[in-house]
Amino acid sequence: MNYDVIIIGAGPAGLSAAIYAKRFKLNTLVISKDIGGNIALADLVENYPGFKSISGKDFANALYEHAKYYGVEIINDFVIDIEKKEFFEVKTYSEKVFYSKSLIIATGEKYKKLGLPKENELKGISYCATCDAPLFMNKVVAVVGGGDTAVLYARILSQHANKVYLIHRRKEFGATPIEVEKIRNDEKIEILTPYVVKELIGDKKISGIVIEEVDENLKPTGKVKELKVDGLFVAIGLEPNSEIAIKIGVKVDEKGYIIVDDEMKTNVKGVFAAGDVTNKGAKLRQVVLAASQGAIAAFYAFKYIKSGVW
Amino acid sequence: MNYDVIIIGAGPAGLSAAIYAKRFKLNTLVISKDIGGNIALADLVENYPGFKSISGKDFANALYEHAKYYGVEIINDFVIDIEKKEFFEVKTYSEKVFYSKSLIIATGEKYKKLGLPKENELKGISYCATCDAPLFMNKVVAVVGGGDTAVLYARILSQHANKVYLIHRRKEFGATPIEVEKIRNDEKIEILTPYVVKELIGDKKISGIVIEEVDENLKPTGKVKELKVDGLFVAIGLEPNSEIAIKIGVKVDEKGYIIVDDEMKTNVKGVFAAGDVTNKGAKLRQVVLAASQGAIAAFYAFKYIKSGVW
Repeated sequence: MNYDVIIIGAGPAGLSAAIYAKRFKLNTLVISKDIGGNIALADLVENYPGFKSISGKDFANALYEHAKYYGVEIINDFVIDIEKKEFFEVKTYSEKVFYSKSLIIATGEKYKKLGLPKENELKGISYCATCDAPLFMNKVVAVVGGGDTAVLYARILSQHANKVYLIHRRKEFGATPIEVEKIRNDEKIEILTPYVVKELIGDKKISGIVIEEVDENLKPTGKVKELKVDGLFVAIGLEPNSEIAIKIGVKVDEKGYIIVDDEMKTNVKGVFAAGDVTNKGAKLRQVVLAASQGAIAAFYAFKYIKSGVW
Repeated sequence: MNYDVIIIGAGPAGLSAAIYAKRFKLNTLVISKDIGGNIALADLVENYPGFKSISGKDFANALYEHAKYYGVEIINDFVIDIEKKEFFEVKTYSEKVFYSKSLIIATGEKYKKLGLPKENELKGISYCATCDAPLFMNKVVAVVGGGDTAVLYARILSQHANKVYLIHRRKEFGATPIEVEKIRNDEKIEILTPYVVKELIGDKKISGIVIEEVDENLKPTGKVKELKVDGLFVAIGLEPNSEIAIKIGVKVDEKGYIIVDDEMKTNVKGVFAAGDVTNKGAKLRQVVLAASQGAIAAFYAFKYIKSGVW
C-alpha cells in the first residue's frame, strides 16, 4: 500500500492536515498514539475562534469527527523509524510498515523532564495535573515550575490534596501576576523559592523529594530540605517531539524545533511539518495557528505530489 | 475615547483578532459594515477544522458570538478616512471619529466589477448567486467568468432560472474539470466562449447584454451577439479592499494586497493587517488561515502597545 501522504500526529495540526489532504483527494494515512494531542488534556479551550468555550476533550473530538467525515484513515500506533528510499518507509511500534510519497510531521511537544535518576521508574510522578490531580485526594504533593502551567497545576491540586508545595528556582514567578496572587492567598499552597529538585526518594512509588536552594545564577547554596510527598507534578516547560524528523535529516533549530518555510516545507524533499513541533509562530503557540499550518502543509503536499516539483 | 486597537472588518480575520485582543485585555473596537464578511454568504463551510459542515451564516454567527462572549464592542459602520496624528483618527460614514494607538486592517476582498457603463446603476446585476439566485425564478440570466465561482453560480442559477448563459473569455474554463463537466451536461446552461461582455442594456433594470467574441490574445474579433437577460451575475474574481490602507501609506503588492511580515505588521508603525486583504497565503485563501492571521496580528498589537517598540 502506497500513500500520497502520511501524517504523523493527530493534534490540531495533524488533523487539520488530514482534513485538507482528503479535500485535495490525497490518499492519506494518519499515525498517532493519541487523538487531539496536548489540547485533549486542556480543561477548557476558549481561544479557537468559533468555539467560545469547549472542553479540550470535546474539541479534540470535533476535530476527529471532522477528519472522519472525510473518511480519513487513522491508526493508533507510534512511528519508531523512517527510511527514505524510493518512497518514505514508515515503521511503527506494532511492527507495521507503510509507504508514502510525502510526510507531514505534526508530532507536537512533550513535557520536559527534570532529568533526575528514577524519574522514569517511580510511580506518582506526573506531567499533567488536569489528568491526574483527582488521584491525590487528601494527599501531599509538590509542583515544580514557575510559569502559568505550574501555577495552574498548584491551583488545581489544592482542590484535591491537603497540601501543595510549589517549588521554583527563581524568587519571582514567570506566570501572569493575577494568577500568582491567587496561589499566594491559598492556604494549602506553600511556596518554596528559589529551590531546585535535587533528588527523588522512593521505592516503586515516590515518597519524598530533596530540594536545594540556589542563588540568582542557579548555583546551589548548600541549603537542602527534604519534603515528604505522595506525588510530584513537573511543569518546567515543553520540548519538541522532533527525534524522528532529525533521524531522516530534517534540520531543527537550537531548541530542537523543525525549521520550516512559509509552505511548511523542511529541508528534506517530500517532508513537511506543521504545528508546535515547528519553529513557526514560536512565540504564540495557539491551536488556530497549528490548524492553519496543517492546512498549508497539506496544500503544498498536494502541489508537490501532483507536480513532483519541490 | 481612545482605544488600544481598532479592527476594521468583521470577517474571520477581524473577529479572530477581536477575540484575541480582548483575551490580551486590549481596549478594542471593531468597525464593520457586516458580520462574517464574504464567508457569511457561503452556502456551506466544510473547511474550517472543527466544524464539519455549517452554513456560512451560522459560521459567521459562531465567530460573532465568540467575540461577544469577550465583550467586544462592534459597530456597524464604514471607515471613510484615517489620519495618523498622535493617535490614529478613524472617521466613519456616519460621521463618528474614533482614536486608537494601533489598527488591524481586516477588510478582506470584494468582487471585481466588469468596469462597464451603467454597471453601478442598473438593477438585476449581482455578484453573489448564493444570495440572489432565487430572485430569478423562471427568468433568463447570464453569468460572466470561468473559474470555480462562475461555474458554481451557473449551477445554482440553473435550479431557478429557465435559461443560463455562461460567458467566458477563454475557450477553456479555469474551474475544476469535474465541475465543468456538470455544467456541460446541464440543458438549461448555454456556454458562450470565447466572449466578453461589451455593453449593458437597460433602463433602471438590466434587459440585455452585448457580447463580443475575442481571440486568444483577448482582442475583439468584431463578431457580436445581443442576449436578452433579466439578470447578470459577475464572477470574474476578487480584489482587495485596501483603499483605506493605501491612503495612510501602507504598501501593497502589484495586485493591491497589503504587504505584511510574519508578525502581520505593515510598513506603517502601528498598522497591522490580517486575512484576505493581505499578501499572506495568497495561494490558499482559507478561513483558518485568516483566523490564524487575526490571532497573530492581535498578539503583536498587544506587544507593540505594551512596549511601544515597533
